[in-house]
Amino acid sequence: MNEEPLVNPEVVSMVGDWKGYVEAKLGFRNHWYPVRFSKELGEGQLEVIELLGERLLLKRIEGKVYAMRDRCLHRGVPLSKKPDCYTKDTITCWYHGYTYRFQTGELVNILAVPESKLINRRKIVTYPATEAKGLIFVFLGDADELHDLAKDVPPGFLDDDVMILGKHRVVNSNWRLGAENGFDALHIFIHKDTTLRHFRTFNFPIGHTPLPGAVQLIEEEDGPKGVMDDFAQHKPVWDGVIDGEIVVSGPRSAQVQGTSASVGTSIWLPGVLKVDSFPTGGLTQFEWYVPLDADRHLYVQTIGKHCPTPADEVNFANEFEATWKPHALDGFNGDDIWAREVTEPFYADDYGWVDEMLCEPDETILAWRRLASRHGRGIQQKIDLR
Amino acid sequence: MNEEPLVNPEVVSMVGDWKGYVEAKLGFRNHWYPVRFSKELGEGQLEVIELLGERLLLKRIEGKVYAMRDRCLHRGVPLSKKPDCYTKDTITCWYHGYTYRFQTGELVNILAVPESKLINRRKIVTYPATEAKGLIFVFLGDADELHDLAKDVPPGFLDDDVMILGKHRVVNSNWRLGAENGFDALHIFIHKDTTLRHFRTFNFPIGHTPLPGAVQLIEEEDGPKGVMDDFAQHKPVWDGVIDGEIVVSGPRSAQVQGTSASVGTSIWLPGVLKVDSFPTGGLTQFEWYVPLDADRHLYVQTIGKHCPTPADEVNFANEFEATWKPHALDGFNGDDIWAREVTEPFYADDYGWVDEMLCEPDETILAWRRLASRHGRGIQQKIDLR
Amino acid sequence: MNEEPLVNPEVVSMVGDWKGYVEAKLGFRNHWYPVRFSKELGEGQLEVIELLGERLLLKRIEGKVYAMRDRCLHRGVPLSKKPDCYTKDTITCWYHGYTYRFQTGELVNILAVPESKLINRRKIVTYPATEAKGLIFVFLGDADELHDLAKDVPPGFLDDDVMILGKHRVVNSNWRLGAENGFDALHIFIHKDTTLRHFRTFNFPIGHTPLPGAVQLIEEEDGPKGVMDDFAQHKPVWDGVIDGEIVVSGPRSAQVQGTSASVGTSIWLPGVLKVDSFPTGGLTQFEWYVPLDADRHLYVQTIGKHCPTPADEVNFANEFEATWKPHALDGFNGDDIWAREVTEPFYADDYGWVDEMLCEPDETILAWRRLASRHGRGIQQKIDLR
Repeated sequence: MNEEPLVNPEVVSMVGDWKGYVEAKLGFRNHWYPVRFSKELGEGQLEVIELLGERLLLKRIEGKVYAMRDRCLHRGVPLSKKPDCYTKDTITCWYHGYTYRFQTGELVNILAVPESKLINRRKIVTYPATEAKGLIFVFLGDADELHDLAKDVPPGFLDDDVMILGKHRVVNSNWRLGAENGFDALHIFIHKDTTLRHFRTFNFPIGHTPLPGAVQLIEEEDGPKGVMDDFAQHKPVWDGVIDGEIVVSGPRSAQVQGTSASVGTSIWLPGVLKVDSFPTGGLTQFEWYVPLDADRHLYVQTIGKHCPTPADEVNFANEFEATWKPHALDGFNGDDIWAREVTEPFYADDYGWVDEMLCEPDETILAWRRLASRHGRGIQQKIDLR
Repeated sequence: MNEEPLVNPEVVSMVGDWKGYVEAKLGFRNHWYPVRFSKELGEGQLEVIELLGERLLLKRIEGKVYAMRDRCLHRGVPLSKKPDCYTKDTITCWYHGYTYRFQTGELVNILAVPESKLINRRKIVTYPATEAKGLIFVFLGDADELHDLAKDVPPGFLDDDVMILGKHRVVNSNWRLGAENGFDALHIFIHKDTTLRHFRTFNFPIGHTPLPGAVQLIEEEDGPKGVMDDFAQHKPVWDGVIDGEIVVSGPRSAQVQGTSASVGTSIWLPGVLKVDSFPTGGLTQFEWYVPLDADRHLYVQTIGKHCPTPADEVNFANEFEATWKPHALDGFNGDDIWAREVTEPFYADDYGWVDEMLCEPDETILAWRRLASRHGRGIQQKIDLR
Repeated sequence: MNEEPLVNPEVVSMVGDWKGYVEAKLGFRNHWYPVRFSKELGEGQLEVIELLGERLLLKRIEGKVYAMRDRCLHRGVPLSKKPDCYTKDTITCWYHGYTYRFQTGELVNILAVPESKLINRRKIVTYPATEAKGLIFVFLGDADELHDLAKDVPPGFLDDDVMILGKHRVVNSNWRLGAENGFDALHIFIHKDTTLRHFRTFNFPIGHTPLPGAVQLIEEEDGPKGVMDDFAQHKPVWDGVIDGEIVVSGPRSAQVQGTSASVGTSIWLPGVLKVDSFPTGGLTQFEWYVPLDADRHLYVQTIGKHCPTPADEVNFANEFEATWKPHALDGFNGDDIWAREVTEPFYADDYGWVDEMLCEPDETILAWRRLASRHGRGIQQKIDLR
């Protein structure tokens, strides 16, 4: 009942230069997060979402999307429990008639107390929303920290002729276990039986260790902040050996698709992965691990392709439905989701961050933890939820 | 595992002159509470109830009702789990034979250890019980604080020819959200579509604000302590307006039933509401919000009517079953129950008491919080449950 | 989220000479515990068990049983979630290929990082396991505290020609409530209607109080530590009396089976009961209350009989299945299980240890609490689970 700290202070005190990352159990504040696909929110439609522990209302009004806290100022009830929208621009609390304008959050009336001095003097929390590449993004943060979306997405995502398709689902783990599972080059071990292999030829080592120079930090003032891991500068491991015997081998092909110039992964604040040439050559996977609360994240999985012509777009949409959605986003990434959820209990009480035993290639993950601690624009705290 | 405080001390320190009310999460001790209807407990029958976080046994012996803690002194097991009543007056613990007399709580024997020195020297907790108007009341408190039932019920409830009928049900919210929902004149907004309107003609504003003089405190030494809100001194609001347009209007009738001299509500310690001329003229609703534990209350709903003759009683019983139970206690109050349960999460960690944003007419609710803090005869604490 | 103490420190400070027992909510460390019957683990089979709050893997390799922590050193995931056993002696983590040898716990390889410096330098926690009388025992403790199994079982259990049969099941109470229920001579009261009476003639008092000399402490340096309660030196109570009237009587027989020289119970560290001449003459019941976590124990119920010849063994196996398993271990002890689970809530927040009201014959239970506090070889703490 007492105000417990969000993160165990003993654990925070025990980690070195990535304390901020350990503290960001609810995510980094003052960043843009994708929350739905644009097509999921029609004109006038209302949608309840969660984001960094807050519950928000999304509404599309005359084409534009607005995001407002879903909790009446008066008695704290969810407006969404029985949404009374008497006008296009407002929502009225079902309990006592507190009425808010979506565009500004202003309390424009209290139906049952039209002469209240609170009217026009109080605001409910609202957050900026925008749309790009068919996704709705919400800036979960303070107005004076607002910045361009381009600073919070991986390079290439916003490119003009890139078409983005995808899906999202809720995963029962903290968002950081999502991010680390995605960026972790070693965990390829769990994908060795993926059905994705039937749809392309590619080499799939048991593991691969970054050589010096593989990992690069991107920290330019005006752009997104990320860590890149170049698979071309990795030493692959093809055979698993126990007591001198080969017990398992990674599948290899003489003819390999999709190993173009850039092969590798990169992870960017506030928690979005870019995988080059994946699920096959010519495609790029972009995926977000959006904090819902302390132990769940929204896994927003997208694939991008350069589609200069309408015919290219139709072809990509068809192959996405036929192949990449079922075999990459569902099948291949289904293994990842399972791994994150199984890992969650070890980190749930925070001690996992100090009790884990990382190995050499996990240096890439440490680089990400440090970068996030340096550049995260704020840590979502319990007080922010009040 | 450590002894957490029942109520967040930070929150208690932040409220002004109604700290006691915030602390009374489990209710006010040393008051009379209705727990069952008399007809629900036949001669010799045993019933398990909860009250202010305690679990009690009720038994009717030779017509009189007794209330005893349902937890053996020896090893703390519930006597009710396997009730061994070898004599009319006693209950024996199924585990080792500790035997208690209902009338006094005395440990009169330990069947397995008849020579124990504990016998006749130890008592289980008992509470006084009484019956009035067809309800069983229990005094949950200390013997030296015992007082007349009349001090804990609204004026008029005990009147000679008043007949009381009702029902009870468990509501999943703290008892205070029940009390405030009931006394809150603004929340009439949620009842605007009530089916009760088919059974009487009455005016139903969107809201109504108390004018100076509407609210009156009743704090006489020897009587019940309460706050009265006189609807005749309210300014009603008939139309809900947003951006200059009327968006919703309260139903009005030229001919209104039941607006006799006294129209209004009043709330009394330890948490009982009186609604004049309701559900229709000539009736009075009395309803209790009896704390069961920190997040549930027993909603005891009753309607009283002056019935000078047996024929009046029969008529009242018939209209109660046909109309007032389904349309008032079930239908109309069903909206209230829903509202309380939806409000509960905001107050569950106590921060709601400081984060709420009350408006002018909520002054009546603040008057109640202050009165309860001044006159509550004790705050039920965790230690009282041990 | 903060590290709460396992046991309420206020409670620990309030008990006298049995603090260690109150602290041992997760059991006593550095003792042997039975976890499965030998026949439940075939060659090469893997089994997940819980013990004192830890989750362990059991595996039988070339006949011998090994016990290893079921949590990968790297990211804390359960190895058992998807067991990859590429060789007979090892288990490989499904996530990144950390590979451990069952016999030693050594990290013998990381399949995805074969050149890691961690290899051969790190160990997962393992515990010694052994088998006796058809049971698998695990020593849950530190290597330098290892001692003979004979110090942790009641006298007679390991006798050469004793045949042991039994079953186990999970009980939803702390292990100490199991131990105290078993050793408690008073609780015979709950068994007065047992179906076991149809299968033997025996006297069944309502209670019986130990006379001076009945209770004996066994604390020899080299042997098991226990408390013996000799029923021959008890004063039985045959009639339960309330207000001068006999209300219930214990069943008595002129001809009683099984009351040989030794009749009584004894309880031994780390929580194992021996009941002489039970469930009938010539048999001995041995039962363990093995801590699984803070609120569940594994009830390992066994019956021993001297069976000098193979024919004796066949006969005992037959009567065990036909009579003693259904009527003693299931029926009679089913009452005990129910009692423990009903007692659990009173002790769950630890206050039960100070709020209970013991009576004179409970002196035997206090003797056990003190002995356990003196001789328990270590208290399992939360830190031991990390």
